[in-house]
Amino acid sequence: MELIDGKKISQEIKQEIALEVKEMKAHGKRAPHLAAVLVGHDGGSETYVAAKIKACEECGFSSTTLRFEDTITEDELLKTVHELNNNPEIDGFIVQLPLPRHINEQKLIEAIDPRKDVDGFHPVNVGRMSIGLPCFKSATPAGIMMLLERYNIPTKGARCVILGRSNIVGKPVATLMMQKGYPGDATVTVCHSATKDIKEICREADIVIAALGQPKFVTADMIKPGATIIDVGTTRVPDATRKSGFRLSGDVDFENVSKICGYITPVPGGVGPMTIVSLMNNTLLAAKHIIYPE
Amino acid sequence: MELIDGKKISQEIKQEIALEVKEMKAHGKRAPHLAAVLVGHDGGSETYVAAKIKACEECGFSSTTLRFEDTITEDELLKTVHELNNNPEIDGFIVQLPLPRHINEQKLIEAIDPRKDVDGFHPVNVGRMSIGLPCFKSATPAGIMMLLERYNIPTKGARCVILGRSNIVGKPVATLMMQKGYPGDATVTVCHSATKDIKEICREADIVIAALGQPKFVTADMIKPGATIIDVGTTRVPDATRKSGFRLSGDVDFENVSKICGYITPVPGGVGPMTIVSLMNNTLLAAKHIIYPE
Repeated sequence: MELIDGKKISQEIKQEIALEVKEMKAHGKRAPHLAAVLVGHDGGSETYVAAKIKACEECGFSSTTLRFEDTITEDELLKTVHELNNNPEIDGFIVQLPLPRHINEQKLIEAIDPRKDVDGFHPVNVGRMSIGLPCFKSATPAGIMMLLERYNIPTKGARCVILGRSNIVGKPVATLMMQKGYPGDATVTVCHSATKDIKEICREADIVIAALGQPKFVTADMIKPGATIIDVGTTRVPDATRKSGFRLSGDVDFENVSKICGYITPVPGGVGPMTIVSLMNNTLLAAKHIIYPE
Repeated sequence: MELIDGKKISQEIKQEIALEVKEMKAHGKRAPHLAAVLVGHDGGSETYVAAKIKACEECGFSSTTLRFEDTITEDELLKTVHELNNNPEIDGFIVQLPLPRHINEQKLIEAIDPRKDVDGFHPVNVGRMSIGLPCFKSATPAGIMMLLERYNIPTKGARCVILGRSNIVGKPVATLMMQKGYPGDATVTVCHSATKDIKEICREADIVIAALGQPKFVTADMIKPGATIIDVGTTRVPDATRKSGFRLSGDVDFENVSKICGYITPVPGGVGPMTIVSLMNNTLLAAKHIIYPE
């Protein structure tokens, strides 16, 4: 069994991005600039935004955090989005989710200019990805594809089983895995809460991508020996031995599955770090106007 | 074996739409109005547009056909699209594909206002469908879903195998079949040219949707007894006994598969007529401003 080290790969890619930014600057261009909109004081959101800003520093990007109290109105937040859309100094921006209940998240997402939508959540980017056109791919699916590529996991004709049909992981990663090219060209099956015989289906898989949010759902008896296991789950489970009072648990029973699979991502340190790197990559692409030429 | 009679169902739905249009008019509203843009003199395109205009008449819709020689420039065609976008008398319109080679089809499609994109090809509609938001669903996948619904085919937890990963059939019908609700909630596998063991995979399917464009690809030994077979193939094969010199062939070996399956669509008279009905349905939705409120 080989560990797919998302932490290591993410460091490598950040260094590659930093090198490219250095060259951009040497050619008189300004650094890519990411803005993050943070509403309220949710602990998880604070942590995520801080990690994204730190990654910007590692990549040599400029970054701006716009903080608002959770009393902000939808109209005020929409106005901020429009200002960011029209600000030529900002290449891409994200609105950290979740938003307070009185704000319509979908409306906010659709107000973002697709050319600056580095989270890849706008329907234009989702649709372009489905059609196979250049687009900002959403962060987690793109990060998974990078891991498969960096570890040279064969995907053409491989049976790929995806557990979960969410809009941010299951559905888009299914689209990417079935598209022509590498990594891709896999025979993809998407399982979910209504699926029968999920164990039998998993056992046929050369690649399992687990994104259900159910700790240790994937057990050793569901895995074909030598299969590649990508664990997207990050559920907080209580753990009295930790200072935080919790630890992150993946969807895979790592201890037992790792004994028979060929490759596996740990949690934490697998898909997680790649998600932020995908955002950095999208921001670089935005700054270079590669997806949507000027 | 029961035949899924797309011709009959399409007539029923057109009558339902006509009834609704009659009521709209009785309430002082004008009839839904579809415009079709037809470039050049391709035989297939002429036939399709004529069939769509005829369906408009059956539904009580107004229709307009805008004809252009294939010498029209991309700019002139884009100008026509903008005029249709801004014409309040037109509820929806289609640009019949394929277009002459000097015109960028994708650019034309993206110039269409998503609110009038009744073909459902604009990335905004594709993306919204993927996310599960209200949208104009593209015609063939929507027609397939209507057939499954009208024949009460169970889909929840069913194994659904889709042959083909095209942007207009395979990928969108996969999305619809896996989404929550009925028809949907199926465990979907998408097979394509890189798939190994396609026969074995098909044999596990409760529902097979064949959209490869390979005549008689699906043979009886690939089918589980009692399965539902949806045949999207419409390949023209030479036939000296026909006046036209050809006949339409589906992707399924109907003669032998029909002996063991539970339900099957014929070609012609199965999915084909439903495709036009989906377009009519989208035009009605556009006129009622249901997908995108005013």
